[in-house]
Amino acid sequence: MNKIKIGICGYGNLGRAIESEISKNDDMKLEVIFTRRDPESINNISNTIVDNISNAEKWVNKIDVLIMCGGSSTDLPVQVPEMCKLFNTVDSFDTHAKIPEYFEKVNNLAKNTKHTSTISIGWDPGMFSLMRLYANSILHNNNTYTFWGKGVSQGHSDAIRRIAGVKDAKQYTIPIDSAINKVRNGENPELTNREKHKRICFVVLKENADKKIIEQEIKTMPNYFADYDTEVNFISEEEFKKNHNGMEHGGFVISSGTTGNGNKHIIEYSLKLGSNPEFTGSVLIAVARATFRMHNEGLYGAKTIFDIPPIYMSNSDYKELIKSIL
Amino acid sequence: MNKIKIGICGYGNLGRAIESEISKNDDMKLEVIFTRRDPESINNISNTIVDNISNAEKWVNKIDVLIMCGGSSTDLPVQVPEMCKLFNTVDSFDTHAKIPEYFEKVNNLAKNTKHTSTISIGWDPGMFSLMRLYANSILHNNNTYTFWGKGVSQGHSDAIRRIAGVKDAKQYTIPIDSAINKVRNGENPELTNREKHKRICFVVLKENADKKIIEQEIKTMPNYFADYDTEVNFISEEEFKKNHNGMEHGGFVISSGTTGNGNKHIIEYSLKLGSNPEFTGSVLIAVARATFRMHNEGLYGAKTIFDIPPIYMSNSDYKELIKSIL
Repeated sequence: MNKIKIGICGYGNLGRAIESEISKNDDMKLEVIFTRRDPESINNISNTIVDNISNAEKWVNKIDVLIMCGGSSTDLPVQVPEMCKLFNTVDSFDTHAKIPEYFEKVNNLAKNTKHTSTISIGWDPGMFSLMRLYANSILHNNNTYTFWGKGVSQGHSDAIRRIAGVKDAKQYTIPIDSAINKVRNGENPELTNREKHKRICFVVLKENADKKIIEQEIKTMPNYFADYDTEVNFISEEEFKKNHNGMEHGGFVISSGTTGNGNKHIIEYSLKLGSNPEFTGSVLIAVARATFRMHNEGLYGAKTIFDIPPIYMSNSDYKELIKSIL
Repeated sequence: MNKIKIGICGYGNLGRAIESEISKNDDMKLEVIFTRRDPESINNISNTIVDNISNAEKWVNKIDVLIMCGGSSTDLPVQVPEMCKLFNTVDSFDTHAKIPEYFEKVNNLAKNTKHTSTISIGWDPGMFSLMRLYANSILHNNNTYTFWGKGVSQGHSDAIRRIAGVKDAKQYTIPIDSAINKVRNGENPELTNREKHKRICFVVLKENADKKIIEQEIKTMPNYFADYDTEVNFISEEEFKKNHNGMEHGGFVISSGTTGNGNKHIIEYSLKLGSNPEFTGSVLIAVARATFRMHNEGLYGAKTIFDIPPIYMSNSDYKELIKSIL
């Protein structure tokens, strides 16, 4: 059997996670890693060829699916529209508000070049989206709530790091138990941001920075912190490096709805992830397989997790799965 | 827009649940209910025509999907192979050990007559199978555990009712918290049946029946009770009718696996169902929609929940869903 030829575009946490996890898939082979840096400067963990992204065109027909591992703010919106003209792609674009516009753009480009580009894959968007869709399709008038954490929010950590006087920072998003419990009981509460999540920050200051001013600046930052109960902890660089380099994350999607004479149903999906990039990467790998199969069936254009027949994500035999897990 | 024309085959708890829930789907219309009984004897809740199942052939081309609502032991294995030659069907066949053979039979018949027959739909098999598949596709070397309950097991209740001296009985399957917690912690325990679930029975005796003998007979019944800790409660018929007519059920699918250097991930899907037949019926309705769509695409033969693009189950607009829940 010919293996599915995979490329990785972007070599940060996510790219490294995929490079390490892909070897567990015996139907796949990693062919190349694209980087914007000098390929010579990359010490990657496998023996895979590293090439500059400017040479991508040379890899046409040598890659079945290119897994896009850049960030959502500036990398993916530029790279995916370029790469989907050359390759089938999978990405983890997660700027929710911009997804419809992004979908349209990628859809047109991929369709015109007969490629399949699966967008916004991972756990949210991704597996959580799927759970929202299933609950929505089964239960009418359902109320669906999504909670995130405990885990690091990259965007919020970045926002703190941009404050003058801050040397380093990590922000943990924590879901609030009392809110989760109300939702689990099917009470359908109206919840403000403040009632759903709290934010805990660990900050390393530069010399002579003023704690009070910085704490105030964090807590009142619009969009990021002003609408939440925020705890700010100042710690030493040593403690920061020792205790705050984890990549755990997770969350819950809880849906409730009723049938018949008010019979209540609660559906809950939860993830506790030891490594956010490694789990996200594992979802991207399974969806790369599905993307390859959809492309073989002539399903061109932009796709989302909503379009994927679940079996397309699996490397196991259909009949064996019917026997063992259906 | 033409509505999807639905038929119901079998008018028990599940058939009634579907009759009541289907009106919430504005893209569907219930055309007929088939019964083996005298149609005149059925007081159904909607104005739908009730016809004897022997007249099914007259309904060809008047029904897009027939939802099969009989039992798995004797009804579905006979009815689905007949009906899938006339109609697209959806069923909830749940005798796990016989699914592969059932799949083959229905697959051949439906393919030959260009119908689409989605088998083994509901929550287990059904949504739980899907969760096992997704976990399996994402996490390598994962350990997946399924727990059921608290809820009534129809098969175990029937088994008790067959004992001489028993007038009525209900058996609740209860998952054992200590086992669930070990699984949630990712300990990958080896669990015996006794460690996963216990069984609680409520029994109404006939006059002069011997409690001790019957309790002994239940607790030692092979396959059903001998391998479990079983509690037997004898109660009055009055109490039985008052407290044991609920149809709640539910359960958990918990998967754990590791990535990278031993980073642990836990995926959990849980259902707490106020009414087992109404929730099962709601899943069957959504899958009837998907079956109609798969048939329109020429996807003939037997299908399972593994084959269904999730979006096919939804009555909402794709672009709207991308905007609101992706």
